Amino acid sequence: MDLHPDVAALATLIGSWSGEGEGSYPTIEPFRYREEVVFGHAGKPFLAYRQATVNVATGLPAHAEAGYLRGVAPGRIELVLAHPTGIVELSEGQVLDQPGGLSLHLLSTVVPRTATAKEVTSVERRLTVSGDTLRYQVSMAAVGQAHQHHLSAELHRQS
Amino acid sequence: MDLHPDVAALATLIGSWSGEGEGSYPTIEPFRYREEVVFGHAGKPFLAYRQATVNVATGLPAHAEAGYLRGVAPGRIELVLAHPTGIVELSEGQVLDQPGGLSLHLLSTVVPRTATAKEVTSVERRLTVSGDTLRYQVSMAAVGQAHQHHLSAELHRQS
Repeated sequence: MDLHPDVAALATLIGSWSGEGEGSYPTIEPFRYREEVVFGHAGKPFLAYRQATVNVATGLPAHAEAGYLRGVAPGRIELVLAHPTGIVELSEGQVLDQPGGLSLHLLSTVVPRTATAKEVTSVERRLTVSGDTLRYQVSMAAVGQAHQHHLSAELHRQS
Repeated sequence: MDLHPDVAALATLIGSWSGEGEGSYPTIEPFRYREEVVFGHAGKPFLAYRQATVNVATGLPAHAEAGYLRGVAPGRIELVLAHPTGIVELSEGQVLDQPGGLSLHLLSTVVPRTATAKEVTSVERRLTVSGDTLRYQVSMAAVGQAHQHHLSAELHRQS
């Protein structure tokens, strides 16, 4: 499978990753989670992305999300991401592929939702890959709270 | 894994499916595709859904989509679905689980998109499962065209 040139800068992401993270928000109890992430590629100008988490304390499935990371111009990416909570992230951002590692920054332009979903106003993602370690932070504004830290995780390459 | 009661009516969908379909639209050449579909469940009030297609004529990857089918009230479902083309479907609809089979009808409430995506105004999905055969039709309004037939496929259960 040849890599599409529009996602060449994202090549480091392709594969599966697992690790642990922590989440917090003013409206919920802090929690720790185990996470499995897959970035797939089929020769088209996007990567397929999906993840699923398990709550460390309870051992039960927690969050999941699935969507696509699109290469749209040199250094420019878009994210379309569905959440089972009934929201979707539509985000724009930058990718930097440097000798020290890869870094992505994505900020939502809009976070549409179904009639029964809780309101999320903005989502921001920062992701770095250095060697076989992927780290990310997610911040958001939701349910009337100011934009702030929500998730932080460190994953390691599995394949 | 216990089935969440909010998606009990959708139980028939869980598993993997494959088959063939045909697509047409006034702005493109008609095409045939092979498709793989997976509906997953993790004990939560939704099914994870993803599919990928290959163009029969070229053998190359064609479309893909990924998201979640949410049980929100008896007989009522929502769909949040990301497309690598940069659009997301947010849809509402009904599910009927009858002795003769399962039927779903979903109509988009809004089809948001990224800055670089083509405009899709509405998407409508009809899906039936009878025995181990899943059939669906997708109609849509896009790029200035009236709402009309786009896709039709017949899939068979693999697991």
